[in-house]
Amino acid sequence: MTTAANPTAAIIIIGDEILSGRTIDTNVNTIAKFLAALGVDLMEVRMVHDIEAQIVDAVNTLRAAYTYVFTTGGIGPTHDDITADCIAAAFGVTIGEHPEALALLEDRARRMGYELNINSRRMSRIPDTASLIKNPVSAAPGFQIGNVFVMAGVPKIMTAMLDDVAPRLQTGRRTLSRTVKLAYVGESWAADVLRDIDARYPDVSLGSYPYGLIQGEFGTHLVLRGQNEDSLNDAVKMLKSALEPIVAEGRTRNALAAMEEIAA
Amino acid sequence: MTTAANPTAAIIIIGDEILSGRTIDTNVNTIAKFLAALGVDLMEVRMVHDIEAQIVDAVNTLRAAYTYVFTTGGIGPTHDDITADCIAAAFGVTIGEHPEALALLEDRARRMGYELNINSRRMSRIPDTASLIKNPVSAAPGFQIGNVFVMAGVPKIMTAMLDDVAPRLQTGRRTLSRTVKLAYVGESWAADVLRDIDARYPDVSLGSYPYGLIQGEFGTHLVLRGQNEDSLNDAVKMLKSALEPIVAEGRTRNALAAMEEIAA
Repeated sequence: MTTAANPTAAIIIIGDEILSGRTIDTNVNTIAKFLAALGVDLMEVRMVHDIEAQIVDAVNTLRAAYTYVFTTGGIGPTHDDITADCIAAAFGVTIGEHPEALALLEDRARRMGYELNINSRRMSRIPDTASLIKNPVSAAPGFQIGNVFVMAGVPKIMTAMLDDVAPRLQTGRRTLSRTVKLAYVGESWAADVLRDIDARYPDVSLGSYPYGLIQGEFGTHLVLRGQNEDSLNDAVKMLKSALEPIVAEGRTRNALAAMEEIAA
Repeated sequence: MTTAANPTAAIIIIGDEILSGRTIDTNVNTIAKFLAALGVDLMEVRMVHDIEAQIVDAVNTLRAAYTYVFTTGGIGPTHDDITADCIAAAFGVTIGEHPEALALLEDRARRMGYELNINSRRMSRIPDTASLIKNPVSAAPGFQIGNVFVMAGVPKIMTAMLDDVAPRLQTGRRTLSRTVKLAYVGESWAADVLRDIDARYPDVSLGSYPYGLIQGEFGTHLVLRGQNEDSLNDAVKMLKSALEPIVAEGRTRNALAAMEEIAA
């Protein structure tokens, strides 16, 4: 499937807690779905430690390669929150207190009934030339610099920040998706048909994913994706037609063999 | 925290279904915990599409940089399973049917009561010089070539394959972990103490992770990690002692402010 016309993106997940196994990342999936809905093609993800050299290298490599880069993690008030400084280093700009960011933090502290302490104040440090990304959950903003969007690691905050990111993105043609389920038919039995359909429709991508291998119902989910609705419809129709004899043959091995299109 | 003496590792998650948002990856977390238990430091993760150039580039970059590389995904019987060919290309070796792999597949087909079809047979194609990784779930093996371990994408199969990978790995000093929970104390209030403890114990890493920001109980998890048990114990003791006045002060703002060490 060629989607060369769509904007492209990469994600950088920053944080020791992901790589140590302590925390299961969910931000990749949230951002992946967000980008898919906007027609932005997510091309690559990297997960790195809270280490300056790793962060700077990933940011500079990926911002040169793709239309957009999204980072999550490392923008809180503590010593291990080094992302903002690393982004400034990657762009070769200075970093300092951003008046609007400081006002947002002071306003929240006032509403919560505290003095803003010096560590929370650190969250107003934003690389020069960056614009803020709103954080409606806990005030401390993310920021955009060039084509890089720097967001919080806490999933609820990250998700809320995407609302302020969406209007800034150039959108593409949304990729449409259809799923055909083959119950009690292993993917190897369908593989010839899949290869044929895949070759016949260069603008449709066809993925084959086994499910339930261990016990109970097993089978194959076939996922067809493309931006051209007519091609996609044709491919689904052709696929189903070509699979009918495979399913019939499968029924000789297992009476429950069946094909249906499903929602997901 | 310097762990230069430990073996290092990277993971490559291969598959359009992850980057499209259709599937949430869980293999990173499984492998991360597996490596942590063996004292192998996971340094980096990349997630790429089923695209040869991306896979070959990631494999060759990471196998040169780290002691071990683990890949998941793309070793099934269908047209979109290109990982084995890409690994062969990355290593500059040929690929062909591996007699032992073929015997495993034929044996499973016989036990299931089928003839091995030509597509399933494709799963016996293994790069030259590679050794097999056992798959006790569905027979089709993974393989090791050089310092690269190539495993299935289906989480249950991938997890089972790790049993055959473990004995092949050089192990390091296991990183020990302790967690102190500050209830109703935001991380910014503790940040000075954290910076101080972090600087005082160079062989202990100290991460600060806010929880429950939205409603109900909120607070901070402080995670201390290190390979030297004495240093870690000292750091935890010093941290708790230094946090006591912070918690006492926190109690003036919220009567529920408290500190306790927790298991996770």
